[in-house]
Amino acid sequence: MKAEIIAVGTELLLGDILNTNAQFLARELATLGFDMHHQSVVGDNPEQIIAAARTAVRRSHVIIFTGGLGPTDDDLTREAVAAAYSLKLVTDEVTKRRIDEFFGCRSLSATENNYKQARVFEDGEVLTNENGTAPGLYYKKGSQVVILLPGPPKELEPMFLAQAAPRLRALSKDAIVSKTLHVFGIGEAALEDKLGDALKSSNPTAALYAKTGEVHIRITAKAQSERQALELADSKAGEIRALVPDNAYSDDGASLGQTLVELLRERRYRIAVAESVTGGMVAAAITDVAGASEVFEFATVVYSDRAKRTRLRIPAAVLEKHTAVSGETAALMASAVRQLSRAEVSIATTGYAGPGGDPAGLVYIAAAVGERITVRRLMLGADRGRQTVRELATKHALDIARRMLLGLSVPDSRSIKDVFTF
Amino acid sequence: MKAEIIAVGTELLLGDILNTNAQFLARELATLGFDMHHQSVVGDNPEQIIAAARTAVRRSHVIIFTGGLGPTDDDLTREAVAAAYSLKLVTDEVTKRRIDEFFGCRSLSATENNYKQARVFEDGEVLTNENGTAPGLYYKKGSQVVILLPGPPKELEPMFLAQAAPRLRALSKDAIVSKTLHVFGIGEAALEDKLGDALKSSNPTAALYAKTGEVHIRITAKAQSERQALELADSKAGEIRALVPDNAYSDDGASLGQTLVELLRERRYRIAVAESVTGGMVAAAITDVAGASEVFEFATVVYSDRAKRTRLRIPAAVLEKHTAVSGETAALMASAVRQLSRAEVSIATTGYAGPGGDPAGLVYIAAAVGERITVRRLMLGADRGRQTVRELATKHALDIARRMLLGLSVPDSRSIKDVFTF
Repeated sequence: MKAEIIAVGTELLLGDILNTNAQFLARELATLGFDMHHQSVVGDNPEQIIAAARTAVRRSHVIIFTGGLGPTDDDLTREAVAAAYSLKLVTDEVTKRRIDEFFGCRSLSATENNYKQARVFEDGEVLTNENGTAPGLYYKKGSQVVILLPGPPKELEPMFLAQAAPRLRALSKDAIVSKTLHVFGIGEAALEDKLGDALKSSNPTAALYAKTGEVHIRITAKAQSERQALELADSKAGEIRALVPDNAYSDDGASLGQTLVELLRERRYRIAVAESVTGGMVAAAITDVAGASEVFEFATVVYSDRAKRTRLRIPAAVLEKHTAVSGETAALMASAVRQLSRAEVSIATTGYAGPGGDPAGLVYIAAAVGERITVRRLMLGADRGRQTVRELATKHALDIARRMLLGLSVPDSRSIKDVFTF
Repeated sequence: MKAEIIAVGTELLLGDILNTNAQFLARELATLGFDMHHQSVVGDNPEQIIAAARTAVRRSHVIIFTGGLGPTDDDLTREAVAAAYSLKLVTDEVTKRRIDEFFGCRSLSATENNYKQARVFEDGEVLTNENGTAPGLYYKKGSQVVILLPGPPKELEPMFLAQAAPRLRALSKDAIVSKTLHVFGIGEAALEDKLGDALKSSNPTAALYAKTGEVHIRITAKAQSERQALELADSKAGEIRALVPDNAYSDDGASLGQTLVELLRERRYRIAVAESVTGGMVAAAITDVAGASEVFEFATVVYSDRAKRTRLRIPAAVLEKHTAVSGETAALMASAVRQLSRAEVSIATTGYAGPGGDPAGLVYIAAAVGERITVRRLMLGADRGRQTVRELATKHALDIARRMLLGLSVPDSRSIKDVFTF
């Protein structure tokens, strides 16, 4: 069944507020198995609302309006929708009493405008508002459903979950399950190429979403029971993972930082970090994970050459001969911070984030697991900007440690012995 | 002139991502004086895109499409818009070369799919993408304008501001100037109250946008010349700054990190950082600023008690008596890292980000300028989540250092002497 969302509100049109209701409803409706095909935003203007309502009814089974149910003269959704669909509005006595009680317990009295909110569709149902005065409205005729919800997310979200969702769920027979695979180290186009037919099935569906340096694959399966849907989704996830086994790092929404923390926790390892180009971002990604203190020893952000010498005792001769941005320096940073911390695992980053540096975007990452040190040279493309270079370097650093802990190969990397054959 | 926004992307329809582009563009277009009357979202589906394009052209002068310009088979906006408006697509050799260069400097080669992005409207203009491969497209015929922008905000926003906005501005006769004041340390409602009538003028307009822990005030002035508009905007900015002089920290879009780096640079001071609860985020915020190496000495992320003892020599007795989350520990961390680094300025953070900790959201921040150390205790509200507590703590840390450098008072703070009267 097709569903669409029409948000009413001039503040949305002008960009004064973000349309978080559309995201909330879209996600909930997709999970309920509705085919989401259109969202729109119109102003607090009866002609616009009526035009949008009439267009929607020609293409969607379920139409959800948000906003414009308040007591002021600007709030016109109820009246405009009634006009568009030729529905009769009547006063609901229960809602009217609730409005009186709401004002009564605040020692105020309701105005005529407030009673506007007690007007409901004659043959429809009222969705009670536990967090405000404007009730929601639910109207069903044949296979067509129209729902009006208040604009404030604090009123809309609980009302939708408790009262609209159960009514919508009853319309469909299927169970729907989604899961998301995270894939790092392969571009969107190359991944699509590699996955080929695995992306083409219609149930489960698999869709790619590009993020900075990684791709998320959303798998959605439909079946008669939740267990069957879950089996379908798991089987598709397995099929995709088998095609990119080293790149697919999580299938439960876990970030690279969470994945690394979990691997360290399983092995009872601790990690230490020495950062130059990433300037604290690797440490921040690890400590972002609740419970990171179990595995995180310490990090040192050694931005200047002097800090590299004094804090990590990188020999001045190495910094002079190879510069601070070199595989040699990265390897010695990883080695030094591991020894200082007595952690089992360490990560080090050095590079030019740009602008400036020769060439900007050049990054070396080293990771150590015990005595084993791996160094990787990356060209991260400074044309994408300083912040992106730093984010990509951070993710590569976490990924190299992850790969070493799992015994996977690290692309284009060298061992510390090969680095130091000078 | 009427404008509307059509966002293309199944991930928007399914609620996987929030439509922040619509808010950004709506705000910018409203600022440019366009009458915003409609926004919509459609899927990666040629029929839906064509239908939306044809509806839009009947009611809007300016139509902006976002998303669906990528290299994969799902990316159909360019082709669908060309079909809807009967525009011819041709290969743009400059863009094709840019794509080759983009892949070349990453030691990859472009696939046929990538070259799809070099297809442009025959009589249109190309908007260069400084942050990715997909160029934007601009097409004008009579009073009708069609603009296609890439979906990732990092590509869309700079492209719109640098290339689309000037073309749109030229369509109108008025000069329009905007500037944004950043205000930290006062809530949106309290700020609105304090600014009162200063927010009420219709030219310049001043609108508040709440961000995590801070508020941005966007001032927009309209006049016959750019100089006059700038004067109007500057005068309004001055009026607002005078009402919140300690809180308004920048009026040129500079972040707290940039503002602090600039203050340090002016004074030829260097800074060192010791982080516990913020786990690297303070260092990352400082090193995010290009040229931070001039002022940034080093940071140490001492997450565990052991790291606090071994890396910063915080006495075990202090950690035992006052715990790691205390004003005493924060003050000693700031003092120790400043002495170790020989920097003039230092910042230290300690606290409970949650979940867990007693109470979660309790944070102590200390900052030192020379021998002067100031400590502040904050309750950052763990109900807002671990990530928000860490972000707020980071911003407070930067702000306290900023205030000390400017000789402003730090609210609710104590000197190290008062902290250590035990």
